[in-house]
Amino acid sequence: MNYQAPLQDMLFAMQELAGLSSVSALQGFEDYDLDTAQAVMQESAKFCAGVVAPLNVGGDKNPSSFKDGAVTTAPGFKEAYAQFTQGGWQGVIHPTEHGGQGFPKLIATPCAEMLHAASLSFALCPMLTDGAIEALLVAGSEELKRKFVGKLISGQWTGTMNLTEPQAGSDLAAVRASAQPQVDGTYKVFGTKIFITYGEHDMAENIIHLVLAKIPAPDGKLVAGTRGISLFIVPKKLVGTDGELTGERNDVALAGLNHKLGWRGTVNTLLNFGEGKYPVNGQAGAIGYLVGKPGEGLGCMFHMMNEARIGVGIAATMLGMAGYFASLDYAKTRPQGRAMGAGGKDVSQPQLRIIEHADVKRMLLAQKSYCEGALALELYCARLVDEQHTGAPEHADEARLLLEVLTPIAKSWPSEWCLEANSLAIQIHGGYGYTRDFPVEQYWRDNRLNMIHEGTHGIQAMDLLGRKVLMESGRGLALLAARITDTAQRASGVAALSAYAAALLAALQQVGSATKAAWATGKPVEALANAVPYMQAFGHTVLAWIWLDVALAVQAEEAGASSAASTGRLAAARYFYHYELPKIGAWLQVVNSRDSTCADLAEDAF
Amino acid sequence: MNYQAPLQDMLFAMQELAGLSSVSALQGFEDYDLDTAQAVMQESAKFCAGVVAPLNVGGDKNPSSFKDGAVTTAPGFKEAYAQFTQGGWQGVIHPTEHGGQGFPKLIATPCAEMLHAASLSFALCPMLTDGAIEALLVAGSEELKRKFVGKLISGQWTGTMNLTEPQAGSDLAAVRASAQPQVDGTYKVFGTKIFITYGEHDMAENIIHLVLAKIPAPDGKLVAGTRGISLFIVPKKLVGTDGELTGERNDVALAGLNHKLGWRGTVNTLLNFGEGKYPVNGQAGAIGYLVGKPGEGLGCMFHMMNEARIGVGIAATMLGMAGYFASLDYAKTRPQGRAMGAGGKDVSQPQLRIIEHADVKRMLLAQKSYCEGALALELYCARLVDEQHTGAPEHADEARLLLEVLTPIAKSWPSEWCLEANSLAIQIHGGYGYTRDFPVEQYWRDNRLNMIHEGTHGIQAMDLLGRKVLMESGRGLALLAARITDTAQRASGVAALSAYAAALLAALQQVGSATKAAWATGKPVEALANAVPYMQAFGHTVLAWIWLDVALAVQAEEAGASSAASTGRLAAARYFYHYELPKIGAWLQVVNSRDSTCADLAEDAF
Repeated sequence: MNYQAPLQDMLFAMQELAGLSSVSALQGFEDYDLDTAQAVMQESAKFCAGVVAPLNVGGDKNPSSFKDGAVTTAPGFKEAYAQFTQGGWQGVIHPTEHGGQGFPKLIATPCAEMLHAASLSFALCPMLTDGAIEALLVAGSEELKRKFVGKLISGQWTGTMNLTEPQAGSDLAAVRASAQPQVDGTYKVFGTKIFITYGEHDMAENIIHLVLAKIPAPDGKLVAGTRGISLFIVPKKLVGTDGELTGERNDVALAGLNHKLGWRGTVNTLLNFGEGKYPVNGQAGAIGYLVGKPGEGLGCMFHMMNEARIGVGIAATMLGMAGYFASLDYAKTRPQGRAMGAGGKDVSQPQLRIIEHADVKRMLLAQKSYCEGALALELYCARLVDEQHTGAPEHADEARLLLEVLTPIAKSWPSEWCLEANSLAIQIHGGYGYTRDFPVEQYWRDNRLNMIHEGTHGIQAMDLLGRKVLMESGRGLALLAARITDTAQRASGVAALSAYAAALLAALQQVGSATKAAWATGKPVEALANAVPYMQAFGHTVLAWIWLDVALAVQAEEAGASSAASTGRLAAARYFYHYELPKIGAWLQVVNSRDSTCADLAEDAF
Repeated sequence: MNYQAPLQDMLFAMQELAGLSSVSALQGFEDYDLDTAQAVMQESAKFCAGVVAPLNVGGDKNPSSFKDGAVTTAPGFKEAYAQFTQGGWQGVIHPTEHGGQGFPKLIATPCAEMLHAASLSFALCPMLTDGAIEALLVAGSEELKRKFVGKLISGQWTGTMNLTEPQAGSDLAAVRASAQPQVDGTYKVFGTKIFITYGEHDMAENIIHLVLAKIPAPDGKLVAGTRGISLFIVPKKLVGTDGELTGERNDVALAGLNHKLGWRGTVNTLLNFGEGKYPVNGQAGAIGYLVGKPGEGLGCMFHMMNEARIGVGIAATMLGMAGYFASLDYAKTRPQGRAMGAGGKDVSQPQLRIIEHADVKRMLLAQKSYCEGALALELYCARLVDEQHTGAPEHADEARLLLEVLTPIAKSWPSEWCLEANSLAIQIHGGYGYTRDFPVEQYWRDNRLNMIHEGTHGIQAMDLLGRKVLMESGRGLALLAARITDTAQRASGVAALSAYAAALLAALQQVGSATKAAWATGKPVEALANAVPYMQAFGHTVLAWIWLDVALAVQAEEAGASSAASTGRLAAARYFYHYELPKIGAWLQVVNSRDSTCADLAEDAF
């Protein structure tokens, strides 16, 4: 993939939608301007294109393997990771006091995005490490920070997230991993965790596992529900007071690798904690350190999870983008079919390139509208994260609330529609797209997980309709509505955009009514029965807003002139309003009527 | 998969929608009644479940390999194929005079369906052999029939279809394979064909290739366009006058295997014809026999292709069905999550099985409505094929015309929506669905080809809007509209169904208006720019008709009583009317306005 085109899209969205220029007004970000952003992004693009992207197909075809508990990662991954850490890329977003570079989220995000586009399987390792750093910085004691954060930020060690267990996926209340308090203040962790990405590998010296586990009550029983869950740091190799390796192995054992539809270049593991394979001082149990307070593990994890969910959206977006550019290149060069004349096709004419066929253009423009729209949304969210962390109090609070409402969309919408984009990219390639000789089928496989992990589509939808639009008396929803209305009002004064402004306001009104209708009886079972169609309509409305904002920015920038990029952006906006936004009617209809066709059906009738 | 549930659905659709009882009124089918159908289908289910289904995962994980031009098929495939031929299954639908069993299409189709559900990769071989037999019976000389048909029907030999070339996929006009006439009336065939399924394998004694090639004009040039294309039979091993092997190899060489996203248990080949690797009498050139008249190859191929397209719809449907039952089983046994009370979830309660969650039910009911609806449509088409071949002239003509209009839907609709069903089946499985330890990810991968081969979605849509709804002055469309209207009128008298009847009539009216609006300017470029959204709306309307017919049949059958199966069918119909049919508005909007957002966009703006 040529990174220059998405880079221009990113810069456009950062400047025009996410207010890059005002980021330097935020505390601590005084030195970050457009020039810095461009320089870092160019450097990142160079690294991604030159070092990481060439590994993506090989990682898929020759996944990691394991022998005697040790994993050999896919060819070239170890070397690329070494270059990644040498370049200081792991530290881009983290505080300078711990050796990071302290960039705003808005500038760090495009770097992460390019890494995802180059190789999702590779990018996951740094992404999980970011999560571990974040958790420690937010909730860890000074001692834990001193021991672990520096080496995670340098990339010398990597991080993982251990939530899921065989019986506890979406239902974290069912977690059975336990942590027994020890007299020295540490814990002994026992239990099995599955689907742990980079839970074992050969790219770094140590692996720092973040683990959800329950501290037994005095009667030895585990507290029911999520309230009993605490968060622990469990290193693979034990670490001394000053962060040095003690030379001892902790009792964390690789039990197997998962083989998946996609993500094949990554290492997906099943880990056993405390089974006694690597006893510490002769005893079974993995040494763990409590992060935050007992019983507050899930809250702490959710702090990270919100950003992780935006991370999922970013991954989905960039896989979509990679497929878009692959199919665009293919469409520009593949000859097939003839021009359509009044009397049908004229075979005496040479073949057209397939980008000259209307249906191929439709499939390209759909991809463009999904992926560039999602990209702009993710960057907008990145800006909100910066604002939340360092903005003035009233702005920070608004940013937090908006993020609460937008996070389920930032996670679910690209997962669904950039996956659809990947399917269209395959379709444009025809039979070749179905072979492993072209990259698009891998993007499609890799992307399919994004609707599942870090909270499934169903979970996101219940979070949105069951919690986020209600919280603080609906203040988050009202805030979002105000921003959408503001965009629509500005656009209604622009002749070329006034119809879209009206369509957006109508959509917003429909979503608002549907929200009320869903909750009209006050019964969660009725309100949430169609939470997913609600979320789909909500998502399309948010994206319509984003596209109208893009169109406004293009109009303002152009002032009469026009460039190919502007024409393309306006066409993608038009596509979204003509082909996509009208879909919300069908989705909202069942929400409005609290349709119980599915919920009421008896099990034996399926 | 337990075959009893889909078997009941098949029998229901065969009896209630496709008029199984009247099939015995058709000439030659006097002996085929419900009992025969049930007996054959039970036998088929037994064979599929016991012999074929166990090979499906292994075929995916250990695909066929080749060495020195010889292919070793996936483990167990050869043995299963031997049992398949011994059981006489290849001959089910073919004429008794050639050793077949002469079953009606309506009864043979469920057998093919079960084979597809058991293993698509396996089922493709007999399916392609069916095509070769069909082509020979329709267009082959008596000599060719005598030499080839018997051994194809017995399964001793298998067949292939060779259309695609590297530069000629959707654009068959670009075919470059050539056939040089020889003095003995045979031809020497030269050229390269790609994506040839079962083009080489070790399961049968000989392989009979159907090949599209052009006979050069006297000046040695190939005629431009599709009019110059002829159809040839090219056996892998040469065959004597009475169908015996002469012991000589024909000049057809395996150049390589294609590795694909799915269909991995099958053998997908690149074949070189006439390159001199296996010279015949010392000379390069594969010996071929003309089937039908010169220059009429495509017409002949399309005769088969129409049934092949229905075959693709069947394959897509059955993969959808396999995923549905897999996810239904999983949903009934997997505990996860708690009941939702007024105050949220009550963690003191035991976990629910996930089928108790509304969103899981929604995903199951969506699958049920897609797959059972598609199944009924395919069986209805099978009945039309019987009617076309053996019905009284006026019925045969109506059946032919209806098939013309319905074929693009029978091919495209299951390809799109039963693929979506497979995605929902993965979603229900959560993280486990993404692993290769559960069957659903394979179904999804296997199903993705169906929107591409035998005419892409785009090709089907242009066939529908550009040809089928216009042909014979719109008589096909009028005929379909009359049948839809008839169903709606009958349903409008049933209280529980009258709202659906009205919705169906409204949808039909919208599709009719859109057809007119698309062609209002008479310009194909404008009419066809949104052919795919048109086909999507058309397809949803057809399926709404099918579901209303099902609901009517259930109401009539029940007469007040109700069974779980009936409740399920009515719920699936209701789901389709509440959740799916309203989608057509968004699709038709761009057709009505002849929206040119995509078609007009300049290439550099993407």
